[in-house]
Amino acid sequence: MNFTEKLAEAVRKNRSLLCIGLDPDPASMPEGTGIFAFNKAIIDATADIVCAYKPNIAFYEACGADGLDDLKRTRQYIPAGIPAIIDAKRGDVGNTARAYARGLFDYFDFDAATVSPYLGYDSLEPFIEYADRGIFVLCRTSNTGAADFQSLSCDAEEGKKPLFKVVAAKVDRWNTHGNMGLVVGATYPEELRRIRRDYPDMPLLVPGIGAQGGELAKVIEYGVDAGKRRTVINSSRQILYASEGKDYAGAARRAAQELRDSINALLAAVDRPG
Amino acid sequence: MNFTEKLAEAVRKNRSLLCIGLDPDPASMPEGTGIFAFNKAIIDATADIVCAYKPNIAFYEACGADGLDDLKRTRQYIPAGIPAIIDAKRGDVGNTARAYARGLFDYFDFDAATVSPYLGYDSLEPFIEYADRGIFVLCRTSNTGAADFQSLSCDAEEGKKPLFKVVAAKVDRWNTHGNMGLVVGATYPEELRRIRRDYPDMPLLVPGIGAQGGELAKVIEYGVDAGKRRTVINSSRQILYASEGKDYAGAARRAAQELRDSINALLAAVDRPG
Repeated sequence: MNFTEKLAEAVRKNRSLLCIGLDPDPASMPEGTGIFAFNKAIIDATADIVCAYKPNIAFYEACGADGLDDLKRTRQYIPAGIPAIIDAKRGDVGNTARAYARGLFDYFDFDAATVSPYLGYDSLEPFIEYADRGIFVLCRTSNTGAADFQSLSCDAEEGKKPLFKVVAAKVDRWNTHGNMGLVVGATYPEELRRIRRDYPDMPLLVPGIGAQGGELAKVIEYGVDAGKRRTVINSSRQILYASEGKDYAGAARRAAQELRDSINALLAAVDRPG
Repeated sequence: MNFTEKLAEAVRKNRSLLCIGLDPDPASMPEGTGIFAFNKAIIDATADIVCAYKPNIAFYEACGADGLDDLKRTRQYIPAGIPAIIDAKRGDVGNTARAYARGLFDYFDFDAATVSPYLGYDSLEPFIEYADRGIFVLCRTSNTGAADFQSLSCDAEEGKKPLFKVVAAKVDRWNTHGNMGLVVGATYPEELRRIRRDYPDMPLLVPGIGAQGGELAKVIEYGVDAGKRRTVINSSRQILYASEGKDYAGAARRAAQELRDSINALLAAVDRPG
């Protein structure tokens, strides 16, 4: 089963577009709780209500070799039916990109990875060649600095358009294996609307609701494709740290369930077929 | 001593603009040689003829937790007087970028890091705030795909210019701590010339000579600033794998010495004061 199929299956089974970002922050975790133990408790509490998990590798690398060990154990603990997306935003020249792809897809065995487009096609190719894995290319990110470069108006082959739309158009053209998607932040609903309108079938990874301030109703209205439901809505801190006490796993489950249900209610309200 | 001073000191002491990229590739290393043992031998053989070492973290991550352990030991083994630059090309939203910066600067204690500009200012800020460390922002990379986005003509505040020049202009503006530089590939000498002309004082990290085909004479003619010598010329495979046999360290020394001396001869020929 390739990534897109695995995602569709998890979306259907758990009736969920919710992805939990496994971004462990020792400062917000109950004292004495190790990273793997924390993730394990979160996964145990939420595996029946999510469509994917997405660890961001930065939070593991901050702890060096021990952190990568925790990441490996976390990845192995994610149930087989739930896609595991590694948020790594990698982008390097071909020879080096191959090493990154080997690390993320062979060593860690993630189902999908996020990558950065700045270095162009040959920096993405080693990832794309893993036809059964998913590749989410940064398009319009959720942070305030996104406008510094991503919104610049560029002279593209097809005419003038902002850089993030040039990226989307190229990804669409490079997507010969059908395994590519885009990262579009919830904090820019108008951009999300334009991307979803132009690429109705493209998997979108949407971070930025909750702590980053993106509005859920607009994400659903603008960002969800009509039939295929290829929209992965990520939430991290809002769920992981719903309680900073010993009851964090239970609190995470309640927060995740609430968010999953809100998403489904909004989907029903905009009358999209399930 | 901050990064720029440490670099200047190593350039002066070793009369060298040569940086060795510590990119271990088990397929090209003598059988049975571990990554740390390989790097140690390379460092022992070349520490008096380089201005910096630059491990690319991808080659370590490809081996998971063990690889990061090798990276940590390698970093600790680099002599105190030689700057250690981590080539990581990181770029993520502020909260995550902080975790990356902590990992690279606190846990690993590198003197400088490469970062990717696609997410804009707030993705770089956590790195910039380490005022004593160096930050090299990807500008014009050495690979063929670089043209896909970096050459797009953009409507910037100052008028029309290619994306990589918009990046350079913003970095120059953001460089309030004086700790920022740019990555400009040796494979695009004309672009290198334009960047060096516009930013005579900016540290430049120049990969792409040797295996990637960049021409050394043009790098020196176009890329070296007249007085301050803030141009770091990286070579990896050409030196590390000068011999794939047991004599790799001696062969690496000869290759590094030859390259260092060629750079110095070219510098003398274009009559730049030392």
